[in-house]
Amino acid sequence: MENKIIRHLSQVATPRGTTARRGRAMNQLEIYGDAAIWIHGDSIMGVGSDADISRQLQLRHVQAEEIDGRGLCAVPGFVDPHTHFLFAGTRAREFDDRLAGVPYLTLLQRGGGIVSTMQATRQASEEELYALGVHTLREMLALGVTTVEGKSGYGLDCATELRLLRVMQQLDHDLPVSVVNTYLGAHAVPPEYKDHPDDYVDFIIGRVLPQVAAEHLAEFVDVFCETGVFTNAQSERILQAARQHGLALKLHADEMSSTGGAGLACRMGAVSADHLLSISDVDIEALANSETVAVLLPATAFCMRKNYAPARRMIEAGAAVALASDYNPGSCYTYSVPLILGLAVIAMKMTTAEALTAMTLNAAAAVHQADQIGSLEPGKKADVVLLDAEDYRFLVYQTGINLVSSVYVDGHLVYEK
Amino acid sequence: MENKIIRHLSQVATPRGTTARRGRAMNQLEIYGDAAIWIHGDSIMGVGSDADISRQLQLRHVQAEEIDGRGLCAVPGFVDPHTHFLFAGTRAREFDDRLAGVPYLTLLQRGGGIVSTMQATRQASEEELYALGVHTLREMLALGVTTVEGKSGYGLDCATELRLLRVMQQLDHDLPVSVVNTYLGAHAVPPEYKDHPDDYVDFIIGRVLPQVAAEHLAEFVDVFCETGVFTNAQSERILQAARQHGLALKLHADEMSSTGGAGLACRMGAVSADHLLSISDVDIEALANSETVAVLLPATAFCMRKNYAPARRMIEAGAAVALASDYNPGSCYTYSVPLILGLAVIAMKMTTAEALTAMTLNAAAAVHQADQIGSLEPGKKADVVLLDAEDYRFLVYQTGINLVSSVYVDGHLVYEK
Repeated sequence: MENKIIRHLSQVATPRGTTARRGRAMNQLEIYGDAAIWIHGDSIMGVGSDADISRQLQLRHVQAEEIDGRGLCAVPGFVDPHTHFLFAGTRAREFDDRLAGVPYLTLLQRGGGIVSTMQATRQASEEELYALGVHTLREMLALGVTTVEGKSGYGLDCATELRLLRVMQQLDHDLPVSVVNTYLGAHAVPPEYKDHPDDYVDFIIGRVLPQVAAEHLAEFVDVFCETGVFTNAQSERILQAARQHGLALKLHADEMSSTGGAGLACRMGAVSADHLLSISDVDIEALANSETVAVLLPATAFCMRKNYAPARRMIEAGAAVALASDYNPGSCYTYSVPLILGLAVIAMKMTTAEALTAMTLNAAAAVHQADQIGSLEPGKKADVVLLDAEDYRFLVYQTGINLVSSVYVDGHLVYEK
Repeated sequence: MENKIIRHLSQVATPRGTTARRGRAMNQLEIYGDAAIWIHGDSIMGVGSDADISRQLQLRHVQAEEIDGRGLCAVPGFVDPHTHFLFAGTRAREFDDRLAGVPYLTLLQRGGGIVSTMQATRQASEEELYALGVHTLREMLALGVTTVEGKSGYGLDCATELRLLRVMQQLDHDLPVSVVNTYLGAHAVPPEYKDHPDDYVDFIIGRVLPQVAAEHLAEFVDVFCETGVFTNAQSERILQAARQHGLALKLHADEMSSTGGAGLACRMGAVSADHLLSISDVDIEALANSETVAVLLPATAFCMRKNYAPARRMIEAGAAVALASDYNPGSCYTYSVPLILGLAVIAMKMTTAEALTAMTLNAAAAVHQADQIGSLEPGKKADVVLLDAEDYRFLVYQTGINLVSSVYVDGHLVYEK
């Protein structure tokens, strides 16, 4: 049936709007008890009390499939706006050894680090990568994630980077989860360019980027701007070139050291600046006065035993804060939404409402889709998560527990527990 | 078929022994690659390489049902040795408000706190409590928990306390999860005794405890020994009385303040001392020189934004450390094994091997069952968890993710993802 109504939900909790909320607004959810959601085709037609929505359907003589929402809480599909989800090989032992105090150089000597993932990924076929991607995205969907940003960056040569982006495009086409592609050739300097990193920047700009743009393989370009990785100047060159190709920008900024990366992202009009553990006060102001979304990755800080990004200060300054997993095989091999929300509220002192906004509407803004997804409102895509809980606060109260009961994407039931 | 063999497991990882391991021993797992587990009836007959175990079966002409373990890692069923899993009513809003900085007294004035759970639990029927218990234990089983300690303590009158213990006994009987009962009348001083707490201690000792013992409703007695709750002297009186009834002892000790509770637990020969956030160096030594297991509850410390118990110092001193959830509706509404293991390793600096030992063998010791469960060894109960992972280290590497693929209890498949 073209029309569906999810009736008698214990609660609907959603942010509102088509752009990222700022400051205190992040804390303002729209909440309905004994609620209903009316879906027409792939879109939301109405959200409100069950009485109101039912009356609307009656007045318009709409026949709708009725879904019983009793005991469930509806929230927007979660958006994960920063992941490196497509790669081959895992590094569990290295992770364990690092936490047990084994020095980083020893881990590298044992064959660990990003280069080991690069080697495994270069050797993986398109079919192998596709199968790995299907597994990951299905697990993420079961956690309520309906849109995932995915970065290349484990090939670092032209062929593998393009292969990663093509596989992600195929996954986006084949699976219910939406995949947003980001070209992150500048994830690390590959061994081939170890002693002449500027040549690798030239390679990215002159060789790979034009193909990425010509074949429409990515919507975003990202750079790992960090002391010892890519300098601010190198980052700016790559972002400039990306912009000339009409691609949107993201930046790994101020993670381990305060280089002013967030300020650079704002000046370049980047859609997001990500990590921000070491952001300066000046750059918090820059974010607050820009359209650039601050994407925070608390699970990485947790797994690396680092101090968290100053979420409270950013929110209070008026920056738009989003949350993401940073899922990758090195520093953060997790896409657990409950863990991220728990860390955001308990460790970073966001409110549960702010964390929900950050994982839905502001995360949608961080992939430039806040006009289509990220909230439950008429006109937006019907990406809906039903939680086995009476109230959205259970997302953090029931710490670390996956409460997802079912997931709708484009108005279709695509996951049921 | 009476015999089963789980073949070609990527890995079996298990602690060994029939008592809690001490010090460095907690870090020593027995690990097999391309492994097999032979189960006969409800017991483990053999664990080792697939070649060895297959040969054993052939030599003895044993016909066994073959289960394909390819791609999976087997670990012992998890034991959660400290929970308050049976209660009515939830307190999500109070939890959220507390994290947002609302003062405790305001929360109490709004009707929060343990008294609200007590009221809801007193009003709940046996059937309602049973249904809630079934739901919780099924969710715990899906996280790989095969044995759960459950405390009374939300009735605080005689009838409700006995009702809670009876319902837990029924759940133990009806569900695959084993439930170990603890009478925790001394969880809080109920409103009726607000101004004369010693009379409540008399009531516990004179009225409730004899019935608990006579009806065999609990194996353990526990007391919330804490400044402002029950004094060391009151705790000792209750534990003495419990011991005279032949019941084993546990103690909530040194959680918020250092009262010497852990030392008291050791002197009384308690099976476990629990929480221990504020334990003194003297009492760490006392634990190390006793048979009392230190049960640590990192999810509570996390949710309450407190410093963690000094796990490293306890392990290095030679104490037997176990992990538990503390699942309860106030301070820690979670039974997430992945969260507990993640916090133990990342926040408390245990190794992954130590954390696994603490959640299996030492947790079994904390409920006095280490001779029957807690490790995968011939003669123990066939409580086995199969993880969708090639190595036990993924339990923390894949932070916060439930990797449980299937669960066997007493040799029977009782959960499949």
